[in-house]
Amino acid sequence: MDYILILDILGVIAFSISGVLTSLKKRMDAFGILIIAFVTSVGGGTLRDVLLGVSVMWLQNMTYVYVIIITTILAVIFRKKLFYLRKSLFLFDTLGIGLYTVVGVEKGIAQGFSPIICIALGTMSACFGGVIRDILCNEIPQIFRKEIYATACILGGFSYFVFLKLNFPVSLIFILSGSVVIVVRLSAVIFKLSLPSIYKKDEDIEDYW
Amino acid sequence: MDYILILDILGVIAFSISGVLTSLKKRMDAFGILIIAFVTSVGGGTLRDVLLGVSVMWLQNMTYVYVIIITTILAVIFRKKLFYLRKSLFLFDTLGIGLYTVVGVEKGIAQGFSPIICIALGTMSACFGGVIRDILCNEIPQIFRKEIYATACILGGFSYFVFLKLNFPVSLIFILSGSVVIVVRLSAVIFKLSLPSIYKKDEDIEDYW
Amino acid sequence: MDYILILDILGVIAFSISGVLTSLKKRMDAFGILIIAFVTSVGGGTLRDVLLGVSVMWLQNMTYVYVIIITTILAVIFRKKLFYLRKSLFLFDTLGIGLYTVVGVEKGIAQGFSPIICIALGTMSACFGGVIRDILCNEIPQIFRKEIYATACILGGFSYFVFLKLNFPVSLIFILSGSVVIVVRLSAVIFKLSLPSIYKKDEDIEDYW
Repeated sequence: MDYILILDILGVIAFSISGVLTSLKKRMDAFGILIIAFVTSVGGGTLRDVLLGVSVMWLQNMTYVYVIIITTILAVIFRKKLFYLRKSLFLFDTLGIGLYTVVGVEKGIAQGFSPIICIALGTMSACFGGVIRDILCNEIPQIFRKEIYATACILGGFSYFVFLKLNFPVSLIFILSGSVVIVVRLSAVIFKLSLPSIYKKDEDIEDYW
Repeated sequence: MDYILILDILGVIAFSISGVLTSLKKRMDAFGILIIAFVTSVGGGTLRDVLLGVSVMWLQNMTYVYVIIITTILAVIFRKKLFYLRKSLFLFDTLGIGLYTVVGVEKGIAQGFSPIICIALGTMSACFGGVIRDILCNEIPQIFRKEIYATACILGGFSYFVFLKLNFPVSLIFILSGSVVIVVRLSAVIFKLSLPSIYKKDEDIEDYW
Repeated sequence: MDYILILDILGVIAFSISGVLTSLKKRMDAFGILIIAFVTSVGGGTLRDVLLGVSVMWLQNMTYVYVIIITTILAVIFRKKLFYLRKSLFLFDTLGIGLYTVVGVEKGIAQGFSPIICIALGTMSACFGGVIRDILCNEIPQIFRKEIYATACILGGFSYFVFLKLNFPVSLIFILSGSVVIVVRLSAVIFKLSLPSIYKKDEDIEDYW
């Protein structure tokens, strides 16, 4: 399971840095930056664990806490250089959401939930850290306006159950459905794909009510 | 208990549609709209269940999830027609808060809490979905500024314990205290009642501190 | 333990009044003011208890609820006089965060967590009520921008483990580490101390990404 640990740490690093950048833009102080890095990395998984009533993962495993603290300190010190890392960070971030989605789906399956709930738990694990980050920064969550992230997670979660129906071995399903998330997200960004907007041009929503 | 199920579903529908309307005004995408519909419907009950340390209701009963997904899709498609449904929706919404209040109070009683806590749990079940909706939409929660909703829930919860003292049968208490919520809210809206404001005209609060 | 109860109540009073003042500035109604007073006082401890999976403190002990309700009513009625109490309130508030920090640290130790987690739980207990208050009032949490509060809690939590290593008796550690929080915060405010800013003058963060 060493590969998974490495992926997990890469994901936590990418999420922490995204939190650091958001909080720097809001001119937060050291404490605020650390908290935002923290909730961006582990907020989704924490919400999932609280809803499931299981132990919160970062209370059980100090690795998360150490990685977040060290990443935050380095990211603040070298903040002017982060620009040059943006491609690697985007890749880590994408690996991270792929991993988190699958881990979330599997936590749901372990508790005997139906596929829809499991997919929701996977998507929540991958996406809700960013939602809490945006709320703490007093912004409307980005993910509610640009759906590439969430769509990739939902498709990845869905594919998990397709592969499960096909009786693939569990470790293969893990890799394949994580890859679905990663491929969908990479393609969406590279080819600038997005779901068709539900809004008509100049549609005035205020009129409907 | 079929009546209760129907009331519950009507409440979930009304709350989901209120979430859809709020998120459309914020120009959210499909994922954002679904999440806002979801938290508006079940956010209050979820918070209550997490605080009580019991299983979260929508993880146990898929009906909620299906009703919310279907309602959201229909509400987005037919969003221009929602205006014509506004009276029915207001009625469903009112039935919903009546039901949710009483269900919340009873969950508190089942765990042996004192009346004040039970009334708080009932009010939370009915009102905090809207609070979470507003936070996610980056607004100050409406209910903190217009108190008709919460006052109706608190009075309904209070009446529950009055009826209990009078030794009414439980099923009758359920109906009566739910009706108190509904009647107070309907009267408040129809007769434009509200509690007297605590603010004096032109009061400058900034001066106090 | 009577002293602790008195300190706790003084802390709850100070936090409730801080919630009342914030919500008055947002022109909230009676219900909103009560909720904000409530989350400011017990929000941090509630979040800690939910993450730890233990019973939420104010569901177990009605004292909190009564103190918050009475304080809120009095604070709203006498809001014009609060200005004259500001020094006492600042003192109560400081006593409160000292106490809450140590209580949070001890709850973590009781569950066998490592020092870093315990310090985080202590800081969360003392500071996150204010974070939830600010989110509900649609502001970026103050504490993410002015770190005096959090730094004092972190140092107090750290000192707890230093005193523990020195084999001091538990009741003395309680008093000493609580005093560290109080002294650091009082000195910071009186001597206008703060950590050096991480931002350079005119630093343009938008450029980094």
